[in-house]
Amino acid sequence: MAQTTKSSAPWELVVARKQDEQKSRIPKEWLLNSLPPSSQLDVRNIPATCGILNDKELKITTNYDATSLLEAIRGRKYTSYEVTLAFCKRAAIAQQLTNCLTEIFFDRALVRAKELDEYMETHGRAMGPLHGLPISVKDSFDVKGLDSSIGIAALAFKPATANALLVDILLKAGAVLYVKTNIPQTLMALDSINNCFGRVLNPANRLLTAGGSSGGEGALIALRGSLLGVGTDVGGSIRIPAMCNGLYGLKPSVGRLPYSGQVSAMRKGGGGLGLKSSAGPLATSLRDCELVLKVVGDAQPWESEADVVPGFYDSAGSCGGQWEKPVFGILRTDNISAPLPPVAAVLEETATALRDAGLDCHEIDPTAFSRCQGLANKFFSASGDNEMLDLLESTGEPLIPWLASRISRRPAKDVKFLEDRQVDREELVKEMLKIFRTKDGRRIDALICPVAPHPVPEVDRWNATGYTASFVLLDWPAGVLPVRSVGQKDIELELQGEAKGSWDKRNRELWDPKTMDRKKYLGSPLSIQVVAPRLQERRLVEGMKIIEKVLADEATKAEGKSAKL
Amino acid sequence: MAQTTKSSAPWELVVARKQDEQKSRIPKEWLLNSLPPSSQLDVRNIPATCGILNDKELKITTNYDATSLLEAIRGRKYTSYEVTLAFCKRAAIAQQLTNCLTEIFFDRALVRAKELDEYMETHGRAMGPLHGLPISVKDSFDVKGLDSSIGIAALAFKPATANALLVDILLKAGAVLYVKTNIPQTLMALDSINNCFGRVLNPANRLLTAGGSSGGEGALIALRGSLLGVGTDVGGSIRIPAMCNGLYGLKPSVGRLPYSGQVSAMRKGGGGLGLKSSAGPLATSLRDCELVLKVVGDAQPWESEADVVPGFYDSAGSCGGQWEKPVFGILRTDNISAPLPPVAAVLEETATALRDAGLDCHEIDPTAFSRCQGLANKFFSASGDNEMLDLLESTGEPLIPWLASRISRRPAKDVKFLEDRQVDREELVKEMLKIFRTKDGRRIDALICPVAPHPVPEVDRWNATGYTASFVLLDWPAGVLPVRSVGQKDIELELQGEAKGSWDKRNRELWDPKTMDRKKYLGSPLSIQVVAPRLQERRLVEGMKIIEKVLADEATKAEGKSAKL
Repeated sequence: MAQTTKSSAPWELVVARKQDEQKSRIPKEWLLNSLPPSSQLDVRNIPATCGILNDKELKITTNYDATSLLEAIRGRKYTSYEVTLAFCKRAAIAQQLTNCLTEIFFDRALVRAKELDEYMETHGRAMGPLHGLPISVKDSFDVKGLDSSIGIAALAFKPATANALLVDILLKAGAVLYVKTNIPQTLMALDSINNCFGRVLNPANRLLTAGGSSGGEGALIALRGSLLGVGTDVGGSIRIPAMCNGLYGLKPSVGRLPYSGQVSAMRKGGGGLGLKSSAGPLATSLRDCELVLKVVGDAQPWESEADVVPGFYDSAGSCGGQWEKPVFGILRTDNISAPLPPVAAVLEETATALRDAGLDCHEIDPTAFSRCQGLANKFFSASGDNEMLDLLESTGEPLIPWLASRISRRPAKDVKFLEDRQVDREELVKEMLKIFRTKDGRRIDALICPVAPHPVPEVDRWNATGYTASFVLLDWPAGVLPVRSVGQKDIELELQGEAKGSWDKRNRELWDPKTMDRKKYLGSPLSIQVVAPRLQERRLVEGMKIIEKVLADEATKAEGKSAKL
Repeated sequence: MAQTTKSSAPWELVVARKQDEQKSRIPKEWLLNSLPPSSQLDVRNIPATCGILNDKELKITTNYDATSLLEAIRGRKYTSYEVTLAFCKRAAIAQQLTNCLTEIFFDRALVRAKELDEYMETHGRAMGPLHGLPISVKDSFDVKGLDSSIGIAALAFKPATANALLVDILLKAGAVLYVKTNIPQTLMALDSINNCFGRVLNPANRLLTAGGSSGGEGALIALRGSLLGVGTDVGGSIRIPAMCNGLYGLKPSVGRLPYSGQVSAMRKGGGGLGLKSSAGPLATSLRDCELVLKVVGDAQPWESEADVVPGFYDSAGSCGGQWEKPVFGILRTDNISAPLPPVAAVLEETATALRDAGLDCHEIDPTAFSRCQGLANKFFSASGDNEMLDLLESTGEPLIPWLASRISRRPAKDVKFLEDRQVDREELVKEMLKIFRTKDGRRIDALICPVAPHPVPEVDRWNATGYTASFVLLDWPAGVLPVRSVGQKDIELELQGEAKGSWDKRNRELWDPKTMDRKKYLGSPLSIQVVAPRLQERRLVEGMKIIEKVLADEATKAEGKSAKL
C-alpha cells in the first residue's frame, strides 16, 4: 500500500487508495520482472522481449491495424477472447512503462470477449462492425461502474451510473472496453500528468513528452497496447499526442461524434458558449480513424443526442469534391511561431511529393490564419476557473506545477464579451474560408500545415497550440499524418533570421543549441496536419489518403534509388 | 409629402422622407382609384377587379405556384419581363391594401428581368433553377444599394454595400428581386407594425393579424403579389405569418440556409449564444419551400460562410427513414395553453385521416414539451435590450405600444447564466428526442402539433409563442401546413373545463364570448405544424408531403360524399 501518514491531506488519502486499486487490477503474472533503467529512453521493444506475451499474442498485437484484426476475428482466425487477452497483457506492460492508464478492467473485458465469441458461435455472424476488438477510451468518458476521476481526488470513487453515448455505440458495435487512459489534471495541459496517476511517458523516448490531453491514448497505442482509442480535442488534445507518438489522430468538427457523458473539471455548459471540444479517434492507421467515423454515423446518434449533427459518414463532406484531380493548399506558418527546421522540411517534402505526383499544391497566405490563435485564446475560461479550483481545494489537492502559473480565480465575463468574440469569430471564419479557393477560383480540397512549430519536445516544453487550437476556433476537422522520423541531417539544419516576437523566441529556444540538445529529437516522429472545412470529415480523410499514398510512393522510390546506389 | 412641422423630432423627419420615398416608387398608373372602405375586411378580390392587371397578368399571378411558373418561363410560355411586371403590379396593389412592403424597386427588377430574357435568348437555356422568378425578401436581408432599415429611423438612408449571401444565391440562381417586406419594430413582435412603414394587414380579414415578424411576406404572398418569399424565424416569425395567411412556411434548423448579411436592432453576436434565428421560405405550395432548400444547397454556401452546415438537400435528413410506412406522432398540447376548439379539431381531423389511411399516428406525452417554452424565454435578451433602445433613442423614436411594456433596459447577464441554460437545454433536447420513438422502439418520422393554441386572432392579440419558440430552442426544423378554414360549426364549439394557469386563461379569452366575437374567425385559415429532428429538413418535407396528400384525399372523399347526398 502507498505510504500515507496521519497528517496526510484528504486528497493524498484518496489518491493512495486509488493508486492501490489501480495496482490491484494488474494480475501479478503480468508484472515486469524489473522496470527498465531510467537511462533506457526507448522502451518499445519491451512488450516483445519481456516474455509476458506468447508468440500468438505478439502477432495479434503487432501485425495488424484495427481493420485487419477485425477481419481476422470475423474470419475466425482469432477469437475475441484471444485478442482481448493479448491486448490486456500488452496494456498492462504499457502501463508499467508509461503510466498510460487510469481505470483498468481486464476481468470485465475478458467476460465480454467470451460473450462475443459465444454470440459469433450461436448466430454465425459478428455482433457488429467492431466485433471483438478491444478499444481504449480517454478517462473522461463515463463507463458504467467505473470512475471518471480524470486524476482528481475529489472525483475519485464516484463510479459512473451510465455509459457515455459514444461508449454505448462502441459496445453495441461489438467492441470490448478494457482500459481508460491517462490525462493531465483538469484536462487543460499538454503533458498528461496528474497527482493520482502520474505522468504519461513517451515510449519511444522517455525524455520527450507523450503529449496531451489524450496522452495516455498516445503512449498506449504507440506501444500497441491498443490499436484504436478515443480521445477529445479542444486545443490539440487528440492531435498533439498523435504527433508525439507517431500515430494517426483525427479531431472532427463539433457534432460529428457524440460528446455527452463525459466528466470535466470545468463548469458545465461552458462548451456551449466558448470553444467546443470534440471526440475523435487515435489509431495506427488512417482507415481505422475512418472506421470510427463510419461506425458512429451508422449508429445514427443524432436520433438520441442533442449535440450530434445528422449525416452518415459517406455524406459527411463529399459535398461536391473532385477527387480525380485533387487540389491541396499548403499553409507553412502561422506567422507567430515559425516552424523549426525539421517541421519546415517535412512540409516542403510533402509539397514537393504532391507536385512531383502531378497534383496542385498551392501556397496559402498566412495573414488571416495568424489571427486565429489570439482569438481562440480569448474563448478559454470565460466563466473563470473557479469551479475547477473549488474542486481541487475541496480535498486540499494542489495544482500540477505546469498549471499553477496558468490557472487562477477570475470573475466570470459578461455575456457581451462572448457576443463580441462570436462576431469576431464569424468574420474570421469567413475570411479563413477564402483559403479554400485558388486564385483562379478552383476549390482547394484540403490544407496541409504543421501540427506544431516544433518537433516532439521534452516533457513540459510544448510551446504553442496555435496550429491546433485555431482549427477548434474554426471548427474545422483536422487530422494528423505521421510522415517520418527526425534524422541526423535534420538536426544539422540551422535557424534562419531573427525571432519575430515572444512566441517565436520561445519556440526557437527548442532549437537553439544553448537551450536544447537537438540530439534528443533523433528518431522522434515528424507529422503533418491536414484540414478541411467544417463537418467535412470525409473530405478530410479522402485528402489524407491521397497525401499518404503520394508520400508512400515517394518513399518507395527513394528506397529504390538508394538500393541501386 | 407627409406632414411634418418644425417641431418634429428627428425620427419623424426621417420617417416622413422614407415614406415619401416609398410612395414615389409606385408608378401612378398602378395606384388604386380608391382604397376599399375599412368596413371591407376581405380585400383578396381587389387585384383581380381593380383593372390594373390585364388578363395575362392575372393568369400569371393567379394560376401558378413558383415551381410551375418557373416551368412556364423555361418553356417560353412567358418571359421573365412579363412575369416580373405582373408581380410588380400585384405587389403594388398589395402594398396599398396591406402595407406589406418596405423597399420597392420595380425599375431594377424590370431591368434584371430583361437581362434574364436576353440570357435565355442568347444561351438557349435558363441562368439557373430560379430563372426569371420574382422573389420577395424580408426587410432585414441586405440588398446592395437599398436600405435594410427594418422600420427604424436610425437605420434608414444607409443603403447596404453588399448583398446578403442568401440574396446572392437567389440572384445567381436566376431570381428577380423587386420588393422587401414589412416587419415589426425591432423584429421582436408578432404583429408587423413599425413607425415608418405602418401595420401589415391581413388581406383575408383586415381585423385579424397578418402575424410577424415576417408579416409583410405573409400578406404579400396571400395576395399573390409574390409566390415565394424569404423570412426569418427565432420564435415563430416564419410560421406565424404562414399560419395567419394560409400559407406554407418552413423554419429550417440553424445552419441549413445562410443567415449572414442581415440587419438587426439587437446586439451583434447574441445569436451565437442564445437562441439562433434561421432563414426560411414562405410560399403557396410545399414544393416551393422545398425548391428553396434544394437551390440553396446546390449553391454550396458552406464553402464561403461560417454559419452554414454542409449538405445537399437530398442528404439533409433522409437519414435512415422508412417512407414506405411512415410513423407520425401527434402532440396535442403544450400543457400551458390548451388549444382552443377549432385548433384541437383540426389536429384530431389530421390524426383521424392518417389513421384512416392506414398510417400510424401515435399520441405524444406533452410533459417534456411543456418545459420548452419557459426555457426558451430565458434565452431572450441575455445581454439586455440596451443597444436596441439606444438605437431608437438616438432619433427620439418611441417604441411601438405593444413593445413598450415588454422591453426595458437591463444589465447584461453573466456568462454563467447562459452556461447553466445551455446545460438545461442539452438535457431537455435529449429528453425531447425520446418523443421520436414509439413505445415499442420504432422511429417516429415527424411530429404534428398546433402552430398556436388559438386561431388567427385580431391584431395585437397573439397570445403564445410556446408552440413555435420551443422548436427554436430545440433547433428542430418545423413547417406550417394550411389545412382548412374556420367554419360555422367550429365557432359553435365550447371550451371545456377550467383554465390551467395564467397563460391558459389569457388564451381562453380568445374564445370566451365575453371577450371575443368568434364570428370574426369565420373563414380564417386553420393550419398544423409538422416537426422533425435537427437539420433533417428533408425528413420534415417528406412527412409534410404525406400528411398533405392524406388530407387532400380525405377532402376529396368528403366532397364526393357530400355530392352524393
